Amino acid sequence: MISLADLQRRIASGELLPDAAIAQSCEAIAARDKAIGAFVCRAENIRAAGTGPLRGIAVGIKDIIDTADLPTEMGSHIYRGWRPRADAPVVMMLKQAGASVVGKTATTAFASRDPAATRNPRNPAHTPGGSSSGSAAAVAAGMIPLAVGTQTGGSVIRPASFCGVAAIKPSFRVLPTVGVKCYSWTLDTVGLFAAGVEDLALGLSAITNRPELLPGAAIERPRIGIVTQDFAGAPESPSAEALRIAGFAVERAGASVRTLALPEISREAWRAHETVQEFEAHQALAWEYRTHYDAMPPLLRAKLDETKGILPADYDEARRIANRGRKALAKIFDDVDALLTFSAPGAAPKGLASTGDTRFNKLWTLMGVPCVNVPAHVADGGLPVGVQVIARFGNDAGALKVARFVEDALARG
Amino acid sequence: MISLADLQRRIASGELLPDAAIAQSCEAIAARDKAIGAFVCRAENIRAAGTGPLRGIAVGIKDIIDTADLPTEMGSHIYRGWRPRADAPVVMMLKQAGASVVGKTATTAFASRDPAATRNPRNPAHTPGGSSSGSAAAVAAGMIPLAVGTQTGGSVIRPASFCGVAAIKPSFRVLPTVGVKCYSWTLDTVGLFAAGVEDLALGLSAITNRPELLPGAAIERPRIGIVTQDFAGAPESPSAEALRIAGFAVERAGASVRTLALPEISREAWRAHETVQEFEAHQALAWEYRTHYDAMPPLLRAKLDETKGILPADYDEARRIANRGRKALAKIFDDVDALLTFSAPGAAPKGLASTGDTRFNKLWTLMGVPCVNVPAHVADGGLPVGVQVIARFGNDAGALKVARFVEDALARG
Repeated sequence: MISLADLQRRIASGELLPDAAIAQSCEAIAARDKAIGAFVCRAENIRAAGTGPLRGIAVGIKDIIDTADLPTEMGSHIYRGWRPRADAPVVMMLKQAGASVVGKTATTAFASRDPAATRNPRNPAHTPGGSSSGSAAAVAAGMIPLAVGTQTGGSVIRPASFCGVAAIKPSFRVLPTVGVKCYSWTLDTVGLFAAGVEDLALGLSAITNRPELLPGAAIERPRIGIVTQDFAGAPESPSAEALRIAGFAVERAGASVRTLALPEISREAWRAHETVQEFEAHQALAWEYRTHYDAMPPLLRAKLDETKGILPADYDEARRIANRGRKALAKIFDDVDALLTFSAPGAAPKGLASTGDTRFNKLWTLMGVPCVNVPAHVADGGLPVGVQVIARFGNDAGALKVARFVEDALARG
Repeated sequence: MISLADLQRRIASGELLPDAAIAQSCEAIAARDKAIGAFVCRAENIRAAGTGPLRGIAVGIKDIIDTADLPTEMGSHIYRGWRPRADAPVVMMLKQAGASVVGKTATTAFASRDPAATRNPRNPAHTPGGSSSGSAAAVAAGMIPLAVGTQTGGSVIRPASFCGVAAIKPSFRVLPTVGVKCYSWTLDTVGLFAAGVEDLALGLSAITNRPELLPGAAIERPRIGIVTQDFAGAPESPSAEALRIAGFAVERAGASVRTLALPEISREAWRAHETVQEFEAHQALAWEYRTHYDAMPPLLRAKLDETKGILPADYDEARRIANRGRKALAKIFDDVDALLTFSAPGAAPKGLASTGDTRFNKLWTLMGVPCVNVPAHVADGGLPVGVQVIARFGNDAGALKVARFVEDALARG
């Protein structure tokens, strides 16, 4: 993989020209993407920006995010060739930070369940996960150092886990969702993929102009609470193994580790996620569903058919539960710096028919808290499995610090 | 003005055909809009929908809201002729409820301060207010029974007050902002204009499919707290008079009325509004500001130039203040059913150069609480002045009930 931190250091020292860094990515895409299918569209004659901390950094943008210079097709025929008028704010923020957009990455249709054609770079017989399939795969295949995705259920953390890359779903609205095709305005969250946790911190800090997110002094003895989210069912053995390995590694590295049970309201909030998501999707996708029913992607259409009956009162109640869940979760962070849990139920499923299951992600999306995937284990078939580091709402710096601790602890074996 | 409730009754009884109701609006627009300039674009060959509670209701849509069949120009040359791919969810919700979109209404550029060409139907030498200038004016001039606008500072309640129509800014996100040009995602709120409070309730209930918003039994003895928002400065005498008249009328009609002081945190939240609004605007409008600087509307561009220096830390602090303000405000509603305050500093200013001042609106937009404008007084020059009824977050039904009480009390003189 291409490390953003490493590129930055080599560019700063003069060892690497920013244009050469971009060219390297373009060549890697040309060489590898035919087998992977991470990109749905590529920019031409890309050069590095003149200034900015991300000068020389090639970025891929999930194709539900508006770009003025490239089509934005939402993974659906309904938007074939569609050209938005403006760049989404997150694209402008990347450009202002000096990054170069090299292309649009494959997304499941409308960031829902209907899979993209992308393959998992670690094992092409398996899904890379979704919905940010192309963004995860492009970083995993060493094509680009940074990619942008979105998560409504588990669409950043899960593909990162399946592809063996680091990723952050920041606190809700740290990155703006304006100009991002909406599925659920309460849940949709823009996130980043990169080779490692330091790369994420450098990328997120540069995009948001938030110095507090820069990698700083290592955290010494983080208090980590391990949660197994029993309400979401049991994990498959590769994920159980990943969490066991990570828990053991951080304890050996000096963390204070204990197992925590989440309160009953967390279970209720976990259940409420779908009500919020699908009620809002019926509004957000009303034009597509009502005027292009036959062209709708079949899995998404079936889900909308199935969830037609959610009433405003059900939705209001789900939001009240979510609010109570957020308050209860905030209390838990009085006693721990971060939670550690599964990133996905297991390794990437075989085939491309399913992008996997959001059951270990959706609570945290609804809570709006920052989540970081750290690759922790490699299962049979060379398939990576990650663990998920979660911090208090607004404490993205803390999530990144603890994730770096986890990554270092795992690297020390 | 055209009463939505009256049209519904006449259509239900068979006295009026839905198509005739639509045609009536189209004729009124043809006859009157040349002098007012409420519409920037009109649909052709409009007919009533087959079903739905709003069948036969002609609606105008503020021109920052996406429509697939009509251009969406944001009040700016930068979007001249722009055609979005999809209808915004709120437009689809209107259509699903049976309403017919007859045109797009004039907006200040990007819903900011640069005025539209619309005149105030009550006195064409005065502004109709902004940013939802055309929506307020179209209802006030008796062209349409229902119009959609948006408020980020005071862009629904203020023009309603200036034009002498009823309007509701519902609780935050009761109406989705997806497909609405963003200025500030924390503040932007979609609202409705109609002839009277009953019309608003019928419209909002039909669009949202929320039966609890339907006009029901009258509230008997509402507990009303009068607030003067001293931190926002003194009102001009027409607004002071409107509040005095309304306070007197509701007390005589049986309400329990007292004057309330808002806590110190409300004053801080009032101040924090601009930080939230402009920090987010720099992101939301980054593409326009960075790539079309010369074509930007001058007042908006100057505001963005002036507020460039807001740091993420300032913004985070402003959001924390807003959260504390929301909690403190919720407590106030333990003791009163609604607050009653100024809708605007005074009657509509003379000329079209300024759309007026948001100082009596912006706190409530940041708090996300439902606000209803009720016309209360007519000042010199035939210029209307409204009062603002405010209820607890989520209690849109209560806001409408108390607003109806205020309206009735004022009608009884």
